[in-house]
Amino acid sequence: MEFTGSHILSIAQFQRADIERVFQVADTMEPYALRRKVTRVLEGAILGNMFFEASTRTRVSFGSAFNLLGGEVRETTGFKTSAISKGESLFDTARVLSGYSDVICMRHPEAGSVAEFAEGSRVPVINGGDGANEHPTQALLDLYTIRKELAGRGRDIDNLRIAMIGDLKHGRTVHSLCKLLCLFSNIQLILVSPPELAMPESIVEALCAAGHKVQISEDLTESIVSVDIAYSTRIQEERFESKEEADQYRGRFRLNQSIYTQYCEPNTVIMHPLPRDSRACANELDNDLNLNPNLAIFRQADNGVLVRMALFALVLNVADQVDAHARDVIWHTGR
Amino acid sequence: MEFTGSHILSIAQFQRADIERVFQVADTMEPYALRRKVTRVLEGAILGNMFFEASTRTRVSFGSAFNLLGGEVRETTGFKTSAISKGESLFDTARVLSGYSDVICMRHPEAGSVAEFAEGSRVPVINGGDGANEHPTQALLDLYTIRKELAGRGRDIDNLRIAMIGDLKHGRTVHSLCKLLCLFSNIQLILVSPPELAMPESIVEALCAAGHKVQISEDLTESIVSVDIAYSTRIQEERFESKEEADQYRGRFRLNQSIYTQYCEPNTVIMHPLPRDSRACANELDNDLNLNPNLAIFRQADNGVLVRMALFALVLNVADQVDAHARDVIWHTGR
Amino acid sequence: MEFTGSHILSIAQFQRADIERVFQVADTMEPYALRRKVTRVLEGAILGNMFFEASTRTRVSFGSAFNLLGGEVRETTGFKTSAISKGESLFDTARVLSGYSDVICMRHPEAGSVAEFAEGSRVPVINGGDGANEHPTQALLDLYTIRKELAGRGRDIDNLRIAMIGDLKHGRTVHSLCKLLCLFSNIQLILVSPPELAMPESIVEALCAAGHKVQISEDLTESIVSVDIAYSTRIQEERFESKEEADQYRGRFRLNQSIYTQYCEPNTVIMHPLPRDSRACANELDNDLNLNPNLAIFRQADNGVLVRMALFALVLNVADQVDAHARDVIWHTGR
Repeated sequence: MEFTGSHILSIAQFQRADIERVFQVADTMEPYALRRKVTRVLEGAILGNMFFEASTRTRVSFGSAFNLLGGEVRETTGFKTSAISKGESLFDTARVLSGYSDVICMRHPEAGSVAEFAEGSRVPVINGGDGANEHPTQALLDLYTIRKELAGRGRDIDNLRIAMIGDLKHGRTVHSLCKLLCLFSNIQLILVSPPELAMPESIVEALCAAGHKVQISEDLTESIVSVDIAYSTRIQEERFESKEEADQYRGRFRLNQSIYTQYCEPNTVIMHPLPRDSRACANELDNDLNLNPNLAIFRQADNGVLVRMALFALVLNVADQVDAHARDVIWHTGR
Repeated sequence: MEFTGSHILSIAQFQRADIERVFQVADTMEPYALRRKVTRVLEGAILGNMFFEASTRTRVSFGSAFNLLGGEVRETTGFKTSAISKGESLFDTARVLSGYSDVICMRHPEAGSVAEFAEGSRVPVINGGDGANEHPTQALLDLYTIRKELAGRGRDIDNLRIAMIGDLKHGRTVHSLCKLLCLFSNIQLILVSPPELAMPESIVEALCAAGHKVQISEDLTESIVSVDIAYSTRIQEERFESKEEADQYRGRFRLNQSIYTQYCEPNTVIMHPLPRDSRACANELDNDLNLNPNLAIFRQADNGVLVRMALFALVLNVADQVDAHARDVIWHTGR
Repeated sequence: MEFTGSHILSIAQFQRADIERVFQVADTMEPYALRRKVTRVLEGAILGNMFFEASTRTRVSFGSAFNLLGGEVRETTGFKTSAISKGESLFDTARVLSGYSDVICMRHPEAGSVAEFAEGSRVPVINGGDGANEHPTQALLDLYTIRKELAGRGRDIDNLRIAMIGDLKHGRTVHSLCKLLCLFSNIQLILVSPPELAMPESIVEALCAAGHKVQISEDLTESIVSVDIAYSTRIQEERFESKEEADQYRGRFRLNQSIYTQYCEPNTVIMHPLPRDSRACANELDNDLNLNPNLAIFRQADNGVLVRMALFALVLNVADQVDAHARDVIWHTGR
């Protein structure tokens, strides 16, 4: 695809070569995110960070990514404060707001809203999540994390062995990740969930059509024995029909250090899209994994900044100029 | 008037020469707003963008205008989060907040509040809208749009023919625009509204006293036959005493492409202060006008950035230094 | 203490020499806050201004302080929009958010929350207020104000005579100020409050143990006769058991110009942590003191910017580089 001036609305836009281009640019952003250098390549540019649905971390991640390239950020949070609630069309909103910035990141609770907004926009729009539909930068940062975590081990996305655990029915992130994985070859997936929360059939079919090997399971411990990545997602109680049904699964999809030690290969990487529910009743990742060096969940969040910097740089066509506007960092950085 | 260091609270402050000075500076801002150049003239300056009433587009427009001059923006939105709700006077609020910035833009739901705030402020305050009272930058951008749209046709604000349509009783923007028009000469106005929502008598008198020709009408189609500008405003249902009364007028003030084609002169410019209610039941501008090149509603919004940049530059006395701090734009811009 | 890379969580971290170091750096920030010069020392750095409890002035003060050093600010306000409400631990929140900035200022309604957050953070965290617990920058700006107000009179924090007036039981600011005063010598305090709202015994004991002279009083006028500083705080009606009890004290702790003239020494400095309740029923400082040159309440707020700039400069280790990145101010400044 041609990145310059394009909207980034869906992972369906990406071919394998496009993903590799994003990841290659993301790699070059690391010195800036780690504060080894500062770049001012986008000094004077403005990001319109339009969050019509609240999401602190995604919003701040996009904003910081733009600041790290030297640009300014104007933003909004929430819905009620917006003219949209007075009957304004997304076309009008986009037409107006796109006069205020060089690029827009938009999040909105309705599926399809960001694409509709993009039609009215005069500047590139990046989808920051449109309801149940897409959150393409999350999918890209997940895949980028897989690639980066495995790189030191001589393994890659091709030939990946991955277990996806939790609510695979409603989890937007695992759906998107599966779609991206269809662009790669020879992947083994184990899909671990209560039967009520199984991965949609259409996605399983797409994975098979891509030549991947898909296994369905309800058993956490047997599923994580031979994988490179254990990708856990949140199971929300309200997804079950009754509390009794929810209780029946309680704890059965929770990964902790003793299960990890007993069942996983030594370097299995643990991922999660965050936020993680740290309360004891949750079906997610135990806090006792925090000292496990293979817990990659916070590196995922860090990688989100790199991927978003890369997308901004590509869409605004400055990827090749970032280093030319670099300076030394003169303040204390712990990293 | 002397702009340097002044508050911009009301259009009553402006003489014709002042308006022409604002517009002349606004013209010089266009290359920056269109991203042909970047200026850093206000690098290091801070705008306090204090919106004690939510208004996404006005807030972002002011903030972007300041960013486009190279400055930083600190801001607040909403009321509950403020000490004002604990009994603090506007004088105190202003005294404190003016220590945090070089200039303040303030919006507040109460009429007169911004002027009261300005008395306590140690930096210039620009009125971003104080309830039913004033929204001076909206009036200026409307007039600037009229001037700019007509310029290519050898016409000007003097000798203007304009129809104002909709709720002329409560519409703050049309009131302010009429007051500004009193500074110009030989204008013909047709005021089109339901009788319950007619323009206040005092404004009609002021227009007549200025030597303008004012016509009152309830008929949209006959009113837009010979005008340079058709300025439409929102009619809110709740302004009528009953739903029956509202229904009686439904659609009678709605302008669409077929009415435009049938009744208007070929180049009649269509304006609206936005947001426009795009739902079918609304009494405003139809979406089928979107392809009409004379629909100036989004150019109005764009012009708001120019006018606000001009006011910042004048109040902070950098209008003559903007170009000296200009640079090339090195990123992709679609405009 | 070593400032570089440290969290600023509590005034208990500070020795007298540390306070003097902060104040000395704060002094050097004045030309920048007064817009006599601009510095860009932190150009490219990002502050994460994380306010999980609303506080417009504290948030904007921190943000402006960072902008005045040349840095960028990403921020959030309020709680509901946060993953914390979905069961995320403060450790996780901190781990993620600290990947987005170079330093974090955090405010949160729960006592101890900021320290817990700091354990997860990979960048320095400054406490912007954690419920009933601490608000260290407020205490520092109060003490800095005392030092600065008295400097011109040949007096100092040592040998200070101060009256603290109002709700001394719940007032976080007076508690913290007392603790800081324990690091200095030979101070006379008069603690003026209704008996139900008296200073906690533990703090009185600490003051006495530091060798200070403490007097308890219920009478405003006799207490302010021989002091350098009259520090007034808000008495909230809801602190009393009944309206009758509240009414009994109404007006008895309110300082106005005529009381000041009748009882105070000519140059007694009046302080208040703000916001001040300006309604007639309030037990605070009367608006008729606004013209009194010894009313230091707005200088306190201004000093907050200096103290926060100093802390950022110290924690990020750029205090010695600020002047090397200075420029002239080219826009109009009223100050």
